[in-house]
Amino acid sequence: MNRIITIGREFGSGGREIGRKLADILGVAYYDREIISEIAKRTSLSEKYVQNVAEHKPIIPFPIHTGRTFWAVIPDYNQSVQQEQHNIIKEMASKSDCIIVGRGADYILRELKPFRLFIYSDMNSKILRCKNNNISNDYEKGAGMSESELTKRIEQINKSRADYYEFYTGQKWGDKANYDICINTAKIEPAKIAEFVSKIC
Amino acid sequence: MNRIITIGREFGSGGREIGRKLADILGVAYYDREIISEIAKRTSLSEKYVQNVAEHKPIIPFPIHTGRTFWAVIPDYNQSVQQEQHNIIKEMASKSDCIIVGRGADYILRELKPFRLFIYSDMNSKILRCKNNNISNDYEKGAGMSESELTKRIEQINKSRADYYEFYTGQKWGDKANYDICINTAKIEPAKIAEFVSKIC
Repeated sequence: MNRIITIGREFGSGGREIGRKLADILGVAYYDREIISEIAKRTSLSEKYVQNVAEHKPIIPFPIHTGRTFWAVIPDYNQSVQQEQHNIIKEMASKSDCIIVGRGADYILRELKPFRLFIYSDMNSKILRCKNNNISNDYEKGAGMSESELTKRIEQINKSRADYYEFYTGQKWGDKANYDICINTAKIEPAKIAEFVSKIC
Repeated sequence: MNRIITIGREFGSGGREIGRKLADILGVAYYDREIISEIAKRTSLSEKYVQNVAEHKPIIPFPIHTGRTFWAVIPDYNQSVQQEQHNIIKEMASKSDCIIVGRGADYILRELKPFRLFIYSDMNSKILRCKNNNISNDYEKGAGMSESELTKRIEQINKSRADYYEFYTGQKWGDKANYDICINTAKIEPAKIAEFVSKIC
């Protein structure tokens, strides 16, 4: 069976950087945005559109009310993107040893018993990480934002990740019971974390 | 400044074993029940009595009701044992590098910025660990208990630890935000964890 490592991470906590370094050390495949590109290729939808659909809980436009029960109608476009994402994650895990970041992969691959990491930190560290060069994308870096705007942005992104995870897995995002190790990056360097996770996973 | 490592742990998750192994690897002092013995020596109370008082949230016998406010009267015996515990933990941390297990040491020593571990696992692993030889004390091992009695015992002890921690620190016990690393012992051996932590702490 392949060695699978999944990484859940709070936005701004350095999870992606740790995942990349860990993949380099272990010499295994690394999947993050590659999943979005692959869905876009298979569905002929744009990457931007796929990313928006694949990373957010669906907006339910028509809740149907029958007696005391609400039935949610999940839009078709959402179901097919989610199904594609699900298939791709399973294919990647069956192909070779790999690291998969986000997307509820710890839950999707639970029968393969992956090593499940969760990366988090406090708000100050997240703000610092967004502002410095560890995040190269200007939008994610919050270029030109005040500290309180950046705080709000970080909270919104993490709320959206939590909603997505909880909607599709029925589990609480970031609840340590669902992971093998949870690491706070406020005091420990990503390179050190990657090095040591490579020896314990 | 001394290197201080604090270990919070769910009962049955192997936190004490990890602490001992980690102290051996690092060659530093290890404090757990030694704290109880020291309080007993200083207060001339029995170890059993001190343990009972030092590890539980006080039972408030006389809540005073004034208007809409309740005032809690914490018994004197409790205050002095807690104060002694507080002093001893600070003395130990100032004496040399050390590992301190439980007793809210992560909070008491927060100004010294200790490395804060939390050790946990799922109920099945806790039951297995209690039943096998990793716990030498018959009472803690739950000798002669059915699985459901043992489950109840483990839940009770952990509830008591959570109550104690929350009463004296105002923080949530086991909330990953209060720790640097949280490790689930269900899939990883204590010796491996100790080795791993010795390199990252």
